[in-house]
Amino acid sequence: MAEQPEAGVQFGVFNETTEHERRVALTPDIVARLRKKGVGCLIEQGAGLAAQYTDADYERAGARVCDRQTVLATCDAFGFVSRPDATLVTAMRPGQWVIGMLGSFTDDAYIASLAQAGLTAVAIERLPRQLSAAQSMDEMTSQNSVMGYKAALVAANAYQAFLPMMTTAAGTIRPAKVLVLGAGIAGLQAIGTARRLGAVVTAYDVRPASKSEVESLGAKFLDLGLDFSAGQGQGGYARQLTKEEQAAQQAAVDEKAAQFDIVITTAKVPGRKPPMLLTAAGVKALHRGAVIVDCAASDLGGNVEGSVVGTQVTEGGVTIIGAPYLASDVSNTASNLLSRNVADVLSHFVRDGRLRTVAGDELDDALVVAGLEASETEESGKKGE
Amino acid sequence: MAEQPEAGVQFGVFNETTEHERRVALTPDIVARLRKKGVGCLIEQGAGLAAQYTDADYERAGARVCDRQTVLATCDAFGFVSRPDATLVTAMRPGQWVIGMLGSFTDDAYIASLAQAGLTAVAIERLPRQLSAAQSMDEMTSQNSVMGYKAALVAANAYQAFLPMMTTAAGTIRPAKVLVLGAGIAGLQAIGTARRLGAVVTAYDVRPASKSEVESLGAKFLDLGLDFSAGQGQGGYARQLTKEEQAAQQAAVDEKAAQFDIVITTAKVPGRKPPMLLTAAGVKALHRGAVIVDCAASDLGGNVEGSVVGTQVTEGGVTIIGAPYLASDVSNTASNLLSRNVADVLSHFVRDGRLRTVAGDELDDALVVAGLEASETEESGKKGE
Repeated sequence: MAEQPEAGVQFGVFNETTEHERRVALTPDIVARLRKKGVGCLIEQGAGLAAQYTDADYERAGARVCDRQTVLATCDAFGFVSRPDATLVTAMRPGQWVIGMLGSFTDDAYIASLAQAGLTAVAIERLPRQLSAAQSMDEMTSQNSVMGYKAALVAANAYQAFLPMMTTAAGTIRPAKVLVLGAGIAGLQAIGTARRLGAVVTAYDVRPASKSEVESLGAKFLDLGLDFSAGQGQGGYARQLTKEEQAAQQAAVDEKAAQFDIVITTAKVPGRKPPMLLTAAGVKALHRGAVIVDCAASDLGGNVEGSVVGTQVTEGGVTIIGAPYLASDVSNTASNLLSRNVADVLSHFVRDGRLRTVAGDELDDALVVAGLEASETEESGKKGE
Repeated sequence: MAEQPEAGVQFGVFNETTEHERRVALTPDIVARLRKKGVGCLIEQGAGLAAQYTDADYERAGARVCDRQTVLATCDAFGFVSRPDATLVTAMRPGQWVIGMLGSFTDDAYIASLAQAGLTAVAIERLPRQLSAAQSMDEMTSQNSVMGYKAALVAANAYQAFLPMMTTAAGTIRPAKVLVLGAGIAGLQAIGTARRLGAVVTAYDVRPASKSEVESLGAKFLDLGLDFSAGQGQGGYARQLTKEEQAAQQAAVDEKAAQFDIVITTAKVPGRKPPMLLTAAGVKALHRGAVIVDCAASDLGGNVEGSVVGTQVTEGGVTIIGAPYLASDVSNTASNLLSRNVADVLSHFVRDGRLRTVAGDELDDALVVAGLEASETEESGKKGE
């Protein structure tokens, strides 16, 4: 290895224990990147394997591969794809840092447990995405992008006809018609991928601003004849619709959906039950062989009425795939992007060779949900949502 | 229904009984097409369901939906995706016609059994593909085309990284490198689909003529530095290589393959054991996470040493998908093309309102492997291979 600055901060990553999780919060190329910034890396044995990185890959990059206990004992900060479970939190000691998607918008008790353990907690879901300094830390964007790509692939693979138009000696195959509901990062990526495959794509979003984005990708914007022009929410997310607005939207979507072969729904809002975009009536109107991929499927429901995690085929021959794990299924690319996001968040807090929060710093105030050091300006805006 | 000519010939299609078969030899739009030519259609209940066509769809198109026994009793000719099994053959009566992929190049006993049963047997695998009249009958081309499309989709879906290049705030993802071995119809379609998805594609075929086809699709031709210039075989298929040529080709492919992320092999030749293109050494040289899709996998082996039907992951983390059923998995499109092919073969033999063979007719001589009516010119060239 080339000469590296003395590693003042030790950063550790564990095997992710969440079910279905194939990603890892640190990839070998990021090890090298962090070492250059004076951050040493420890990784639990086998943590990268499901993302196609072996322990030897990490060692070659300059990381120390060791057991869980050593990572726990040695590191100043830990990075996660999601967040540590209660057992792991209990095993940590005061002063250590936890960086990940902590669920701070919905799980106050969990954040309180981190504070109680004396940990400093950095919640990436609170990233002020509009700041240019935050772009490379934006895990939500990177993972949603992977999710949208994979959603289109999964849909194409489940659909028992061609996506592209084909002119052959035995006749012409018409291109598949794809409807993407929710045109955020995931939706736009799904549009792009379905278009690459030759499908004719239409998309819808409650945010009127998304129309031009959709059209710039060569897709049609679905006009429901409804006005939710105050629909643009905070941080680039859609606001929650009223009950009446939702019902009107559902009726309009249900009616339009029948003409499509593939429907991909991507309307997830962190910390909220996903909005139902397509009801059972809409599903029933789809033709035999149609495929729905619901990226928002969860125990709380999804964007499609009746969707569950996994694959089901309705009596009418419509395949509904509830697929919240799509980013994890592209584990290598997703991990590469994610580990860069996490590393850049970590690097932001490395100040004069050690980890420090600074109250009043825009990123610190937004991200640090436990353990923010007090300053003369008090803890302002930290919990602002 | 509009007024139709009196149906002089009755054409029947059964549920395909082969394992994994989702296709059907008759689709509703072809029912209408055949009726216009004076051919009535019968279809066994549920035969189209796996291809997304209900009995009601067939009835609307003008077909008679009935049980197996009625199809057997009523029809002059039967169409198959593959071929009838022995039980079904026994149930037929002399003078009835069987049209399908009969396996006549390898299974003399089977063809003899059809002849013995007094059936007229039309073997689509013997189609003289170079005749322009045969283009719309070319089941091999239509189904291989579907297979190649699906092979690329299956590979992309199994690969745990992006196919397209992506430039994001969290870094650039390089495009996947795809190698397609065998650049016939299936290979060319796999190239096109992988290219659509943004991969960088390289392809190889023993037929030098394929170089320009590969390049016209925007892929690179893999130069192995070997000369099999006498490689172009009959009917557009590659000739069989000598043992020495095969070994030299394997060594060269094994060496080059290591740099690719995805390898798709499509070298099937009807009636022959598929050539082994990638040996175990080549598989071992691939990186962790690489994906191989072997379209030629079968009980006799495939294009990849050690590939079996289904999915396996090697110790080195390479996923090998042995996938002979890919066309069947795109059941709707595959059936639409296939049923047009079969119907056009059938229509060729409808002469003056009844089914007749004519010895001396180029198509008849090539296709009819049992029951060709004698003529003054004798049965010339019929078994020519």
